[in-house]
Amino acid sequence: MKDIKFPETAVIREVCPRDGFQNVKKFIPTEDKVKFIDELASTGVSIMEVTSFVSPKAIPQLADAAEVMAEFNKKWNGKVESVALVPNLRGAENALKAEPDWLNFVFSASEAHNMANTRRTVEQSLEELKKVEEIRGNTKLCVSIATAFECPFDGAVEPEKVLKVLEAVFETGADGVTLADTIGTADPSEVDRTLSKVRDIYSDYPFFLHLHDTHGMALVNMMAAMRLGFNSFDSATGGLGGCPFAPGAAGNAATEDVVNFLERIGVKTGIDLLKTVKIAREMETYGLKIMSHLASSSIGREEKETCSQG
Amino acid sequence: MKDIKFPETAVIREVCPRDGFQNVKKFIPTEDKVKFIDELASTGVSIMEVTSFVSPKAIPQLADAAEVMAEFNKKWNGKVESVALVPNLRGAENALKAEPDWLNFVFSASEAHNMANTRRTVEQSLEELKKVEEIRGNTKLCVSIATAFECPFDGAVEPEKVLKVLEAVFETGADGVTLADTIGTADPSEVDRTLSKVRDIYSDYPFFLHLHDTHGMALVNMMAAMRLGFNSFDSATGGLGGCPFAPGAAGNAATEDVVNFLERIGVKTGIDLLKTVKIAREMETYGLKIMSHLASSSIGREEKETCSQG
Repeated sequence: MKDIKFPETAVIREVCPRDGFQNVKKFIPTEDKVKFIDELASTGVSIMEVTSFVSPKAIPQLADAAEVMAEFNKKWNGKVESVALVPNLRGAENALKAEPDWLNFVFSASEAHNMANTRRTVEQSLEELKKVEEIRGNTKLCVSIATAFECPFDGAVEPEKVLKVLEAVFETGADGVTLADTIGTADPSEVDRTLSKVRDIYSDYPFFLHLHDTHGMALVNMMAAMRLGFNSFDSATGGLGGCPFAPGAAGNAATEDVVNFLERIGVKTGIDLLKTVKIAREMETYGLKIMSHLASSSIGREEKETCSQG
Repeated sequence: MKDIKFPETAVIREVCPRDGFQNVKKFIPTEDKVKFIDELASTGVSIMEVTSFVSPKAIPQLADAAEVMAEFNKKWNGKVESVALVPNLRGAENALKAEPDWLNFVFSASEAHNMANTRRTVEQSLEELKKVEEIRGNTKLCVSIATAFECPFDGAVEPEKVLKVLEAVFETGADGVTLADTIGTADPSEVDRTLSKVRDIYSDYPFFLHLHDTHGMALVNMMAAMRLGFNSFDSATGGLGGCPFAPGAAGNAATEDVVNFLERIGVKTGIDLLKTVKIAREMETYGLKIMSHLASSSIGREEKETCSQG
């Protein structure tokens, strides 16, 4: 594809410990979580969403957020950037005590989804963001805009809606912004439609994209985004996670599938593919339901390379 | 993606009854096969690979090929084109008695895979093709070139190798040619590399592409191919099938995932998506292991459309 200029490198933000684990019903003991997180941190990944500071009543799985973050800081501080998701001011206050590198404040571009998820209007979430901005001090702030392409209630989300939200976010201030296909039903033409307009205004801004594979389109959407120069993506080892509106469906784009795809088309990720496949398989053995092409295939690159040499 | 001119329409060749069923260990009674095939034929699909005339010792599942083809002709003759896979002259002789619209003669571009699969050199397979050509009469002949991008033994298959095989195939004569990513490990840059060269020589020829989703790249590969004007694809409802080298891995591109993707980016397929999702789910209930994003998702378009209206 010589006529497409893909980015030379990509940044992968590993979100398995947050977006993956939060969807696992049975509580994963903290020491097991920490063990997986340590393994993930050793793959060469540069940034990881480690946990979420959310009400333990809402997501009991992440009730150990402070402890998990403390363990992470002890071992990986200065090596892998840590991200703590926060849904509101209270979460931000709790997160700051645990000293992550990043707060990741999340709300939705579509009113219906934001109300269902945060019980706030978009306007109210933007007000909450201002309060988070006021207290965050030197901690970096990422703002994640959920349902940036499709909403399970409102349908397709107009690019103009996203641009309006972005304007307000940048007015408040942010060190990073994520655009999320929360339910994983966006298609490449929608992704192109919105991201082209975003690119027209914020030409070089390093947006993150959070893509789910619910309808199998995570990689085609990634390809559509890369054509426009976007090169920072969330993914979860093992493809853990998923959309609460789609039980049983595929979850986050699997880190190993993403890394394989990117490296194969010449985009460097710095992540050890074989190690990632191995961790995904360990998660499966541990009892977690993985959704991974590479890890489920006996011709993962390792075997294939052996095979082609033999 | 206004800068990419995708084809306006695509042709989907449904291969579930052959490439899907042949991978199912437990024999599916002929009447159940016929029932599924009838349902698939009623989705709006224009061409279907109905069975394979192969030794019943090699693939016991398809021992009822003649009966299945007879049933198909009775109901769908003139409505849906029928394809019978044949691995050799003997298969072709048997298939011709069952009067399919198409014979689909398969061999591999890579020597190692062709030897493992057919016990012939590529040269010998091309000789066998000539014999099939001589006896086929008015029955249309498709030639499918397996491992056209990657071989599980030889690794990447050079485009020059494929071009050489194509030249010999066209010298013998064929009404259709399929290029297959048999093990499903090709990436979009490989697909682009080979197909660009194929396009340079055979500018308007309506090649079929047979893509597997082993590494999750079926749709990105399809997108890479469509950029070059290719618009005819094999897929299997439920994503049944798979690569014998990758047990447990994803199989053929699922028809419902392909149709959803294509229709969403504006490429018309003529296939009823909801009906296809329904059949995939029926197959799952029947006990077949499906690998389908759409059918496994509670936000298949039907629910989503209801939801967005509500």
